[in-house]
Amino acid sequence: MSKKLTERNKDYSKWYNELVVQADLAENSAVRGCMVIKPYGYAIWEKMQAKLDSMFKATGHQNAYFPLFVPKSLFEAEEKNAEGFAKECAVVTHYRLKTDPEDASKLIVDPEAKLEEELVVRPTSEAIIWNTYKGWVQSYRDLPILINQWANVVRWEMRTRLFLRTAEFLWQEGHTAHATKEEALDETELMNNIYAEFAEEFMAIPVIKGKKTESEKFAGAEETYCIEALMQDGKALQAGTSHFLGQNFAKAFDVKYTSQEGKLEHVWATSWGVSTRLMGALIMTHSDDKGLVLPPKLAPNQVVIVPIYKGEEQLEEISLVAKKLADELRAAGISVKYDDRDTHKPGWKFAQYELQGVPVRLAIGPKDLEKGTVELARRDTLTKEFVNQSEVVEKVSNLMGEIQDTLFEKALNFRNEHITKVDSFEDFKKVLKAKGGFISAHWDGTPETENKIKELTKATIRCIPFNAETEEGNCVLTGKPSAQRVLFAKAY
Amino acid sequence: MSKKLTERNKDYSKWYNELVVQADLAENSAVRGCMVIKPYGYAIWEKMQAKLDSMFKATGHQNAYFPLFVPKSLFEAEEKNAEGFAKECAVVTHYRLKTDPEDASKLIVDPEAKLEEELVVRPTSEAIIWNTYKGWVQSYRDLPILINQWANVVRWEMRTRLFLRTAEFLWQEGHTAHATKEEALDETELMNNIYAEFAEEFMAIPVIKGKKTESEKFAGAEETYCIEALMQDGKALQAGTSHFLGQNFAKAFDVKYTSQEGKLEHVWATSWGVSTRLMGALIMTHSDDKGLVLPPKLAPNQVVIVPIYKGEEQLEEISLVAKKLADELRAAGISVKYDDRDTHKPGWKFAQYELQGVPVRLAIGPKDLEKGTVELARRDTLTKEFVNQSEVVEKVSNLMGEIQDTLFEKALNFRNEHITKVDSFEDFKKVLKAKGGFISAHWDGTPETENKIKELTKATIRCIPFNAETEEGNCVLTGKPSAQRVLFAKAY
Repeated sequence: MSKKLTERNKDYSKWYNELVVQADLAENSAVRGCMVIKPYGYAIWEKMQAKLDSMFKATGHQNAYFPLFVPKSLFEAEEKNAEGFAKECAVVTHYRLKTDPEDASKLIVDPEAKLEEELVVRPTSEAIIWNTYKGWVQSYRDLPILINQWANVVRWEMRTRLFLRTAEFLWQEGHTAHATKEEALDETELMNNIYAEFAEEFMAIPVIKGKKTESEKFAGAEETYCIEALMQDGKALQAGTSHFLGQNFAKAFDVKYTSQEGKLEHVWATSWGVSTRLMGALIMTHSDDKGLVLPPKLAPNQVVIVPIYKGEEQLEEISLVAKKLADELRAAGISVKYDDRDTHKPGWKFAQYELQGVPVRLAIGPKDLEKGTVELARRDTLTKEFVNQSEVVEKVSNLMGEIQDTLFEKALNFRNEHITKVDSFEDFKKVLKAKGGFISAHWDGTPETENKIKELTKATIRCIPFNAETEEGNCVLTGKPSAQRVLFAKAY
Repeated sequence: MSKKLTERNKDYSKWYNELVVQADLAENSAVRGCMVIKPYGYAIWEKMQAKLDSMFKATGHQNAYFPLFVPKSLFEAEEKNAEGFAKECAVVTHYRLKTDPEDASKLIVDPEAKLEEELVVRPTSEAIIWNTYKGWVQSYRDLPILINQWANVVRWEMRTRLFLRTAEFLWQEGHTAHATKEEALDETELMNNIYAEFAEEFMAIPVIKGKKTESEKFAGAEETYCIEALMQDGKALQAGTSHFLGQNFAKAFDVKYTSQEGKLEHVWATSWGVSTRLMGALIMTHSDDKGLVLPPKLAPNQVVIVPIYKGEEQLEEISLVAKKLADELRAAGISVKYDDRDTHKPGWKFAQYELQGVPVRLAIGPKDLEKGTVELARRDTLTKEFVNQSEVVEKVSNLMGEIQDTLFEKALNFRNEHITKVDSFEDFKKVLKAKGGFISAHWDGTPETENKIKELTKATIRCIPFNAETEEGNCVLTGKPSAQRVLFAKAY
């Protein structure tokens, strides 16, 4: 620790970058665009993983692992997918280094160890997986295949930011194979719903479910469903996507099955993923000028206890109480850190745990010993109160749910206040500039108009919401007829 | 399913390869030397991960994530480590593909997208991690750093085998930093002990703890501790290693700390890892000619229930009993699969679950309904008995521990019967040929003799065991004096 963070309203982007580093979540590495996820950041990611993994398994999915590399000839088999990712591929061309003949302390690529076929480091795994599924599917009895993979992927992005856009990131990618179009569409929707449920109930991030336009959908997909969240600076963030891939990959890799009626058919596919980008969404949805604010369900430590003492003897007395409380809280299923380090002062610890977003802080000093109290501070509201030691467990247990709900409500209110209906392009531009957020507007359905609006305003169509009413209207740019509003925003 | 497996005593290697594929554990992929870990195999790996992860955390370690790539200049910084891995590195040289001007359906590496500095796909992460630790360590207060990473790594092996030796594999790698040599040595030993405990108590694989000779130790280590297991064909398998790295990486990356006395010192290091290779050890230790045999602690399904029925009505009656039993078993903490698929016959299912090593099979037919019994079959002993339905839960609960113990005892007896003391090189060769296993022999301590024995017999020194008595003797090859026997074996 650590200088004060830049304030959000002064420079949101700088605030974010400082927060990620100072709260010990992640940092840049020696490899361009690749991050180091530090233990505190990784502990949050592990909680996300564990919850998502259990949701996937509860819906019948199993984990597996496929190769990191995709031979170029497989990579290029599904044309649109290949085209979409070719521009940002890390490519392995050699399999050996050797001592530099001019400087024995250096290594050079051994030109004699050139691969016959280049290997692409997976930017996504449809190609390698569908090439594998070919061997797994003969009959309708072999379907569905419901597989998920936790893995690292590489996309050679030119402009990177910690968690939000990194050359290497961690994610899960589901890849399913189905006998019918309907079943694949159901799966696509199911997984988008699971992402929404996870975002809202676990991360306390309200999201809008919808589908992407032609120009925004995944390379190789027929349809991309998504969940879109809104950050505190009024920019949207795509928090998860679920793709209906039609028979594109089955055709590219010749994956067919014999149906119950004995007909040979191509298999239907979906894929779906969320990534460490969610860490960025989490940070930007809830945090404040003092640092990270974590929903209790994701906090590695839900409670921290800090003793305030002078001298060994006082510390011992306080520790008796603190450790008893910690045990009781743990028995109630709450994770607790007791920080009795003598290398740091209580004030330093207070600031540190605020910066790191620990939901509840308990402080115990000599006066608390006399009175049988503790000082309880909530990270989300920055409020404090004294609580009887005998009531701490019940109080904190209730607070876990209350803080989780409060964070969600706050984010939901903010999001709802930042969805603005506009009916003219003047208003569109005015609202976008003054307030940001989602702009709900009519659009004539053409990629040309979508592109034009993007050129003029930098706003893109985040999604065509699923739950929107049909409403006759006119495109905000061209005036052509439209039957439904879509959501525009500037986005991460 | 699936033709009969080749018998172990006919062709052990073929038996292994067939078993891995037929039991749905893993298969080869389109990428040379890289495997696909299938859901059933991955489920076993996940159980290993979960247990190891909890053991690491219980000893104060935290997870983090470091980049997949290592810039060449960092890779070469620690000379011995670089030399050890340079010959088997996948190297990324370009970051973009483009359309082949001669064939628009193909992609080629874009020569304009050549990296300024090549990136090595990590074969191990000491270099990238120690380059990071440099920024984390200033004072003794920043130590120790106790970090583990779950990751994929790539070593371009020329001869690969599923799980045992693959170009890409999954592993965990611990990387710790300490203020003193003593503390680092303690950590090295602690983690080797954790691996031994995990192997014996969880995988039911007896192991010998020891240290590697100079020529067998990790490239860049001062000392490598290891656990060595013995497979059924008499070959040894290194199941885990823990390295004391001295100050080698701290010096290569200039990582220093200010001690409590105000002196600037280099940091001391360890690293330690186990990999998906453990899957190979698991398979080869316990399995038989009918397929996989799994210790209950690692079995994705500890119990399978198969109904034997004619017609819907009978199935319904049996299912009532089966589902009740399944619920009761689950309530007792036992994982159960109830396989009532009508697409496969009971005989097929029996063979399939034998092949996949499910520890306990329960079969329920019409006669069992009358008598209130089930047929219980143990996978490890291939024995069957009838059990009253009311006694199933207690019986199976007890069996879980009993099977776990039986497998360990069996493997331990086999291992102990295959440690042979020899005192002449003639006997050495004779025993190695006739019986294999570990050969306990005196060695003069020189790499020359070690190499000579390797050349002549293909046996290497697996370890210098920690628990061995000192014993005056003469080197089995040179007759020079020796103070301790070491363990030789042919090895995977």
